[in-house]
Amino acid sequence: MPELAEPLARLIAEFKRLPGIGQKSAQRMAFYVLRVQRDDAERLSQAILDVKDKLGLCGRCNNITDGELCSYCSDPNRDDRIICVVEEPHNIIGIETARNFNGRYHVLHGALSPLRGLGPESLKLKGLVERIGQGDAQEVIVATNPTVEGEATAVYLARLLKPLGVRVTRIAMGIPVGSDREFADEVTLSKAMEGRREM
Amino acid sequence: MPELAEPLARLIAEFKRLPGIGQKSAQRMAFYVLRVQRDDAERLSQAILDVKDKLGLCGRCNNITDGELCSYCSDPNRDDRIICVVEEPHNIIGIETARNFNGRYHVLHGALSPLRGLGPESLKLKGLVERIGQGDAQEVIVATNPTVEGEATAVYLARLLKPLGVRVTRIAMGIPVGSDREFADEVTLSKAMEGRREM
Repeated sequence: MPELAEPLARLIAEFKRLPGIGQKSAQRMAFYVLRVQRDDAERLSQAILDVKDKLGLCGRCNNITDGELCSYCSDPNRDDRIICVVEEPHNIIGIETARNFNGRYHVLHGALSPLRGLGPESLKLKGLVERIGQGDAQEVIVATNPTVEGEATAVYLARLLKPLGVRVTRIAMGIPVGSDREFADEVTLSKAMEGRREM
Repeated sequence: MPELAEPLARLIAEFKRLPGIGQKSAQRMAFYVLRVQRDDAERLSQAILDVKDKLGLCGRCNNITDGELCSYCSDPNRDDRIICVVEEPHNIIGIETARNFNGRYHVLHGALSPLRGLGPESLKLKGLVERIGQGDAQEVIVATNPTVEGEATAVYLARLLKPLGVRVTRIAMGIPVGSDREFADEVTLSKAMEGRREM
């Protein structure tokens, strides 16, 4: 193995811990940091710490925020009648990018996983039940992941929330738009058949 | 666009400056930093600063080092008679990984580029000439990149160093091992023909 100076080898090792970053990418990134101005490196270094120090969870929906409430909860133009439930804060990005949802969010910070011993007590559910109790919400869209854990969580939420007098819906599963049907797996295709609509 | 909390948006923007990192990778990395322990984030943050603060150039070959001399210059088991010249410090990694070179290095920190106004004065050449003047070196292998700039630099080095009584060689250019010859471009193929050897 090439013998790199300790600080450089250490930075490469640290970059490699990031998701999707292998040895070569980590090397390129570390040598890039070595070349840039100290100011630029300092900004990156500080941004990493700021994310840990200046962010907390929204008091209403548990999304990431640097204030009391997140931008979606504090926006007066969003619809209080629909709450979209997601597993993690980054799941919100995808939904916002799609641009056709204008309700509120609720972040569970996890999903049910009996195999890993994660029961309802590991999810941030309390705030959701309270919000529904306050009466504005008419529909809860469960947008947990299309995995065993996400499905189990969806079923659990439906049983928990329906008695509170709210409509509980699940996002559609089917063949992805723009893909070739040949490549869809059996489960996806079977879900797509089940969820077919009149044209 | 999704409205992210400022520190998170800023970290994503900083990660996007790194080579090979796009919007999605930067998002994944930033949300990963958000999830890890503060200690882990601190180690990454500190490693970035340390690379700027604790590293300098080797007094002999201009490689990156945290000491006076780099590990290759201070290794008593390497051969003083051969010096391999590269453009950038990271070019050494590839050569070391190949494991069949055991001489010394010299890093130019650039290449000649008349188009961008980079002449010989922009390269770290002085130390190289001095080292050859000291008499140990018998061969200089020019391992600059196979680009117009790297080639121009190689030609310049040959003219500069041969009069000092040293052998100057250039690494071979040809078809990459393991690739399909069909995909080699014309210039590479023409170089491969030129450099053919008796079997």
